[in-house]
Amino acid sequence: MTAQLSKKSEAWSARFSEPVSDLVKRYTASVFFDKRLADVDIQGSLAHAEMLAHQKIISQQDHEAIQRGMAQIRDEIASGKFEWLLDLEDVHLNIEKRLTELAGDAGKRLHTGRSRNDQVATDIRLYIRGAIDDIVGLLREFRLALLDLAEQHADTILPGFTHMQVAQPITFGHHMLAYVEMFSRDAERMLDCRKRVNRLPLGAAALAGTTFPIDRERVAKTLGFDDVCRNSLDAVSDRDFAIEFCAAAALVMTHISRMSEELVIWMSPRVGFIDIADRFCTGSSIMPQKKNPDVPELARGKTGRVNGHLIALLTLMKGQPLAYNKDNQEDKEPLFDAVDTVVDTLRIFADMARGITVKPEAMRAAALQGYATATDLADYLVKKGLPFRDAHEAVAHAVRTCVDRDCDLGDLKLDELRAFSTLIEQDVFDVLTLEGSVAARDHIGGTAPAQVRAAIARHRAALG
Amino acid sequence: MTAQLSKKSEAWSARFSEPVSDLVKRYTASVFFDKRLADVDIQGSLAHAEMLAHQKIISQQDHEAIQRGMAQIRDEIASGKFEWLLDLEDVHLNIEKRLTELAGDAGKRLHTGRSRNDQVATDIRLYIRGAIDDIVGLLREFRLALLDLAEQHADTILPGFTHMQVAQPITFGHHMLAYVEMFSRDAERMLDCRKRVNRLPLGAAALAGTTFPIDRERVAKTLGFDDVCRNSLDAVSDRDFAIEFCAAAALVMTHISRMSEELVIWMSPRVGFIDIADRFCTGSSIMPQKKNPDVPELARGKTGRVNGHLIALLTLMKGQPLAYNKDNQEDKEPLFDAVDTVVDTLRIFADMARGITVKPEAMRAAALQGYATATDLADYLVKKGLPFRDAHEAVAHAVRTCVDRDCDLGDLKLDELRAFSTLIEQDVFDVLTLEGSVAARDHIGGTAPAQVRAAIARHRAALG
Amino acid sequence: MTAQLSKKSEAWSARFSEPVSDLVKRYTASVFFDKRLADVDIQGSLAHAEMLAHQKIISQQDHEAIQRGMAQIRDEIASGKFEWLLDLEDVHLNIEKRLTELAGDAGKRLHTGRSRNDQVATDIRLYIRGAIDDIVGLLREFRLALLDLAEQHADTILPGFTHMQVAQPITFGHHMLAYVEMFSRDAERMLDCRKRVNRLPLGAAALAGTTFPIDRERVAKTLGFDDVCRNSLDAVSDRDFAIEFCAAAALVMTHISRMSEELVIWMSPRVGFIDIADRFCTGSSIMPQKKNPDVPELARGKTGRVNGHLIALLTLMKGQPLAYNKDNQEDKEPLFDAVDTVVDTLRIFADMARGITVKPEAMRAAALQGYATATDLADYLVKKGLPFRDAHEAVAHAVRTCVDRDCDLGDLKLDELRAFSTLIEQDVFDVLTLEGSVAARDHIGGTAPAQVRAAIARHRAALG
Amino acid sequence: MTAQLSKKSEAWSARFSEPVSDLVKRYTASVFFDKRLADVDIQGSLAHAEMLAHQKIISQQDHEAIQRGMAQIRDEIASGKFEWLLDLEDVHLNIEKRLTELAGDAGKRLHTGRSRNDQVATDIRLYIRGAIDDIVGLLREFRLALLDLAEQHADTILPGFTHMQVAQPITFGHHMLAYVEMFSRDAERMLDCRKRVNRLPLGAAALAGTTFPIDRERVAKTLGFDDVCRNSLDAVSDRDFAIEFCAAAALVMTHISRMSEELVIWMSPRVGFIDIADRFCTGSSIMPQKKNPDVPELARGKTGRVNGHLIALLTLMKGQPLAYNKDNQEDKEPLFDAVDTVVDTLRIFADMARGITVKPEAMRAAALQGYATATDLADYLVKKGLPFRDAHEAVAHAVRTCVDRDCDLGDLKLDELRAFSTLIEQDVFDVLTLEGSVAARDHIGGTAPAQVRAAIARHRAALG
Repeated sequence: MTAQLSKKSEAWSARFSEPVSDLVKRYTASVFFDKRLADVDIQGSLAHAEMLAHQKIISQQDHEAIQRGMAQIRDEIASGKFEWLLDLEDVHLNIEKRLTELAGDAGKRLHTGRSRNDQVATDIRLYIRGAIDDIVGLLREFRLALLDLAEQHADTILPGFTHMQVAQPITFGHHMLAYVEMFSRDAERMLDCRKRVNRLPLGAAALAGTTFPIDRERVAKTLGFDDVCRNSLDAVSDRDFAIEFCAAAALVMTHISRMSEELVIWMSPRVGFIDIADRFCTGSSIMPQKKNPDVPELARGKTGRVNGHLIALLTLMKGQPLAYNKDNQEDKEPLFDAVDTVVDTLRIFADMARGITVKPEAMRAAALQGYATATDLADYLVKKGLPFRDAHEAVAHAVRTCVDRDCDLGDLKLDELRAFSTLIEQDVFDVLTLEGSVAARDHIGGTAPAQVRAAIARHRAALG
Repeated sequence: MTAQLSKKSEAWSARFSEPVSDLVKRYTASVFFDKRLADVDIQGSLAHAEMLAHQKIISQQDHEAIQRGMAQIRDEIASGKFEWLLDLEDVHLNIEKRLTELAGDAGKRLHTGRSRNDQVATDIRLYIRGAIDDIVGLLREFRLALLDLAEQHADTILPGFTHMQVAQPITFGHHMLAYVEMFSRDAERMLDCRKRVNRLPLGAAALAGTTFPIDRERVAKTLGFDDVCRNSLDAVSDRDFAIEFCAAAALVMTHISRMSEELVIWMSPRVGFIDIADRFCTGSSIMPQKKNPDVPELARGKTGRVNGHLIALLTLMKGQPLAYNKDNQEDKEPLFDAVDTVVDTLRIFADMARGITVKPEAMRAAALQGYATATDLADYLVKKGLPFRDAHEAVAHAVRTCVDRDCDLGDLKLDELRAFSTLIEQDVFDVLTLEGSVAARDHIGGTAPAQVRAAIARHRAALG
Repeated sequence: MTAQLSKKSEAWSARFSEPVSDLVKRYTASVFFDKRLADVDIQGSLAHAEMLAHQKIISQQDHEAIQRGMAQIRDEIASGKFEWLLDLEDVHLNIEKRLTELAGDAGKRLHTGRSRNDQVATDIRLYIRGAIDDIVGLLREFRLALLDLAEQHADTILPGFTHMQVAQPITFGHHMLAYVEMFSRDAERMLDCRKRVNRLPLGAAALAGTTFPIDRERVAKTLGFDDVCRNSLDAVSDRDFAIEFCAAAALVMTHISRMSEELVIWMSPRVGFIDIADRFCTGSSIMPQKKNPDVPELARGKTGRVNGHLIALLTLMKGQPLAYNKDNQEDKEPLFDAVDTVVDTLRIFADMARGITVKPEAMRAAALQGYATATDLADYLVKKGLPFRDAHEAVAHAVRTCVDRDCDLGDLKLDELRAFSTLIEQDVFDVLTLEGSVAARDHIGGTAPAQVRAAIARHRAALG
Repeated sequence: MTAQLSKKSEAWSARFSEPVSDLVKRYTASVFFDKRLADVDIQGSLAHAEMLAHQKIISQQDHEAIQRGMAQIRDEIASGKFEWLLDLEDVHLNIEKRLTELAGDAGKRLHTGRSRNDQVATDIRLYIRGAIDDIVGLLREFRLALLDLAEQHADTILPGFTHMQVAQPITFGHHMLAYVEMFSRDAERMLDCRKRVNRLPLGAAALAGTTFPIDRERVAKTLGFDDVCRNSLDAVSDRDFAIEFCAAAALVMTHISRMSEELVIWMSPRVGFIDIADRFCTGSSIMPQKKNPDVPELARGKTGRVNGHLIALLTLMKGQPLAYNKDNQEDKEPLFDAVDTVVDTLRIFADMARGITVKPEAMRAAALQGYATATDLADYLVKKGLPFRDAHEAVAHAVRTCVDRDCDLGDLKLDELRAFSTLIEQDVFDVLTLEGSVAARDHIGGTAPAQVRAAIARHRAALG
């Protein structure tokens, strides 16, 4: 490295005015980001105190003093008067110290039979459980909005694409229902994850359990947990639930990214299938015709951060020996940001779904451009007795003729069509229309409007 | 770029003898890796043919010809006589072409009412369903082996570590049960994933359903699917189940990596808590005392590949528009390798668990080194009425005295102990022993041998 | 778990016929995938032997026997006659054993002063160095093809998009040059990575160096290494270069994915900007108009696997203590697959670039649709003295008028334009044409045809 | 979903008090996190204004008004008086609006010939360039600290481990130098990345360049850029440099994680090789002997977040069409957090390296436990003429005898040693000592104290 760089290195060192000891304090503290756990921390402490009193590990007076102190702390936090101190490292010690100021010895007794290791694990689980319930609710709202949109367009025909090439006509309602399926699975996955979140680690203490006669089931019941964690070492070191949550969140965002991609393409002037309400877009002062679909673009980009958080947590846990290690403090920020990202995105999308204007003429015009009913003609011939592969060949000739004449299959006359197969009769024109094509796919999962309406009804019933 | 590099670029081009057209063929073909789907592909085709016949879409004779042809193809594949052709791209076309050779027009009719898009989706789901069942079985075997080990050492005491520092005494059985918990959750997650895998996409055809009067529920029943996919666009483009499977697999491997880390440390000569049977290790011809724990090291490393496959699949699906795109062909290799990795690793670990020799003396010696019962002394004082934080301070003084004298807490005399708190009486020595310490943590999830035995019994009952 | 599952678990166990000891052998062996290192392994051994002889650590006769043996082994491998044995674990032991059969004691002496740890590290570095040289060559070929395409269309105008909305007219040549820039950076990065790859670990032996009087610089020179690794512990445990290579490879594939996305969209019938030669697409027997851009789709999907391999390697190295651990055997498969993916993809893309047919009319029509010259009108007004933000407002009014009349800005008459600003004069029509707009962006990096041609010339000169 | 859940969904909706329109504003705004770009944004604007004035695109008076306005804005920001408004979206508009308040029309003219697309790209590059310079400086400081530690312990012997098993004796200085090598490569990589960061996008305007007669080289020179970006489309959409930076940052953290793993193990009581100064650890009020190495544990955990940010950025760019899309706003948070993580961690580690106390006796005792000199005995025999593999066998027998007698190789008498090979003579004892073993590895990269000291001198010279 040259003298030049060495001078540079003097320059940079001037930038760091903070002494290392303060830096260490800041580096190892978590209160900046874990104070959002304050409410669940207090919930957990109150349930623990109630059990301690019931088990006569602390006195009833102590219990009451703790309850009074916590009520005041809640108020102080809610009103922004609570003083968060970096020197007290984290949300737990900040609250405990304030409690001791308010409740004296009773505050010092709250920590009996527990440690920060099981306390923090309990807090995170309560927090994620709440986040899952929020997300499941938002997924429901979003699907209800999509179902309304699907119902409005149960008969609206657009080309179905594979490889971004026109394949077969479908209905827009059917297309929207594909997303309803995805977000239904997301809700299922969140609820499956919730089962594993909703187990109580409290009572594991530092790592081995406690010598006090605690009643873990009682605390679990008070806090609404389905079960208690069955091994104390596992209870304090397990972060599976955070990883499983992030994996489920990554799938939500993956679905959002797919829908966003389609919305952006559909709004592009060459396609022009939809318009999105102004409040989800930005304009340009110079080009009034230019409306940028900012929200779906940004949401598509946010897929990255949730995938990243998933990897952050998997990397964190890789090769960690039991039981608790300080590494685990790194579980919170990825988790919190994943929650925020999914919650904000779903709220906006639920609203944006009601701000989508469909342009049926543009969709129809596109569907008429790509010989979308060629498969229908082949199926028609098969039903008349031709083997599948032979039917395909006949249709290929017909399409080639249309390409030469620059017309659609339905534009050919019966005589002309019969040149490709004498099995073709007058009823062929029923299957060559876009409407005939979609109506014929009339089985569960098919694009026929009747099936779309039935599916909407099923989903609404399930969403209650 | 310099002349030198330009010469280099001539050099490299000589290395590529394959013409680009062959390269394109190889690049886009999947038969190299998807031929492992042959068995499930045939299963799916037979169920489809049976339904077509039942619905009178094909004749009974055609159905029988297809059955006979497929039986022969199965034999040819099993005996290695089946000729896989790159020109036929994938497993599906290879089998279909052979069927047509064997069964004539009946073979051509098999593809009626389906497309490769729903066919391949069905095959992968059948394949993963089988893999999940295998993995759930292997997780059971592994846990049974760990339970046996835990039972043998329900009373064996070792130091419990936090931050790799001695914290409190625990039993080795209890430590093993922490892993049993992890692998139990893995089995749960696999079974939750199975629910979403086990839905039938067949009938979605290319993307919109089919015009033939198919009976999807009939096919689902034949193939053991719990339900049919409810939207044809989603059915052909959904790969959630592969991602969810990989996420569950990544957690299995994360647990394996944590256990492996501990096994490797425990076998290190400075620790010496365990020995692993020779067949899971490699020696060195020069250092006979050197036994390298190859299997746990390699397994720890394999965590990376499954995390990687998860990211591969998430990246694959990010921003993909509906319905089917060729990108999706990339779903198979990561998935297959994730399955192989988890299956092989669990098989070996189930066996290796029975090849672990525990060294109780080394564990005990280590537990005696770190004032592991200091918490017990504090709890003792709390029970005598001292507030928790004050009890801690008294114990801190006692430990400091021991450090000065280079002795353990249990080595102090009653008088000496009473110098720290007059609440201390003769019964204190019950809590200062390792046995007393572990026995006192006698609540659900605690490390007491009685709790360990109860947990083992519970797990065995659950595993049937 | 129920009785049903327990029965299932019997079912699966029947599937595993391989005894565990064979499984362990297969699990820990690497010869299946590392035999592709055979050539570099032999290169490395020959250079080592030459040095041992030169330093008189082995005799000249031994050296010659090793040379003869290795020549024969090379032939055997090339002709497919070499017998790879799983029992010999890896490529190194397979070759060493065969050498000992052929050269007797001389073969046994080859391993003097080295170990498998530094040998394998040397092999991988030689292998990646070769791969980098191939990739740099392919990146050059690909850019030359893109430059030809850019030159043909230095004047072809299409709309430049931001947010997938029409923004300003650009030339297709300019658009292609954006990709040339990306792939130029990729080549730079590969060459920077090469510097760190091209250092010799041999001589580090197991981890601490050797007691033999070796000459590492000599071996480095023979093998074309720029330097020797300066610390033996680092030399055997370092896999940075593999990670750095995968990161560079992931960026190559990211660029490929962006280009593929554009190619797929451009080939979609609603856009229709290009056509791709048939051999990179698949058709459909039923829809002759349907041409699926398989190669770009598949390439876009392959981005996932390289991102995944990068994560696999980063996860692998996370938290690994020094020096060598068996985990590191997992470095090869991700690396090899990343090499194959990038090499195959670049070869195909270099060829495909010459198979792209541009449709200038469709591009021009699209550019005329979106008021693409609105910015030019604003710039015109600014040059006449109006502040930027005020100019924008005037243009906004003009565009709105055009929207109402369904015409373009250039269709307005001078009088009409002057209604928005009296600064507008006859010369305004020069800037309102597509040609005027692109020609005016005539600075380095701008879209003017003159700049495009200058950039092409610069790139060609740099590529030699 | 049941009625119960439906009730839950009412519960959650109550939690969201923010109207969606505010949420959209917050969702799409970036001023919360991009205000840290304020300083580089002003730098960039001043250089742009200077060029506009020099090119007579704006007047000298306007230029001076802009300079005065920006000086005041800088003061306002520094003193915390600047009012950041969410409604103004980002740092750029916040500053521009304030400038217009302060400088009137001159402020409105600043944006001539540029757009936010090239402005934001310029800002991020300036920011990362500064971050790289900081990190290179910190890597230097850290290595200087490691070199001091290495020098103090150039002769201190500890066992070198492979597979966590004792392999051969090495010196602690040598071990530290392995990390110096890693962090040297990190600095190299950062500087290679800097080359690609340090190119000026300004002048690309929205995507196609501008019609004003700008002088991009002039701006580049003013801002210290090495070059200008050569293609306007690429200039506004390229985020390679951010990904390359994150990949380099991930490697820094990977090295930190490896060192941290070793520090944690070395501080574990069963190993006891080192102690870390108190200010980098936390104690426990109850167990004064317990000192948790919090900083290395946390740093090890932080590897995850940087790996995650790398994946976030790669996912972000995957499949993005040209030129600018709103997705790209997501580039900043991962990047900023990666910078903060690496900067803070390196600062602490540079200080912590000086707070490591080495315990030579514990290291020596461990080195004597594992037959660490067995390889030396084999090398000794090879030098006496025995072929390598035969020498190994002789040593194996010797070690086995030692295992039986529970002694080390150096404890055997000459006669006893000669039983394994008559080539052994009195001088064998020189190679059987730890000191003899390390001293004999006396070639570049070897562990001999002389080599360690030479390497330290080389590094110090290079660091200037």
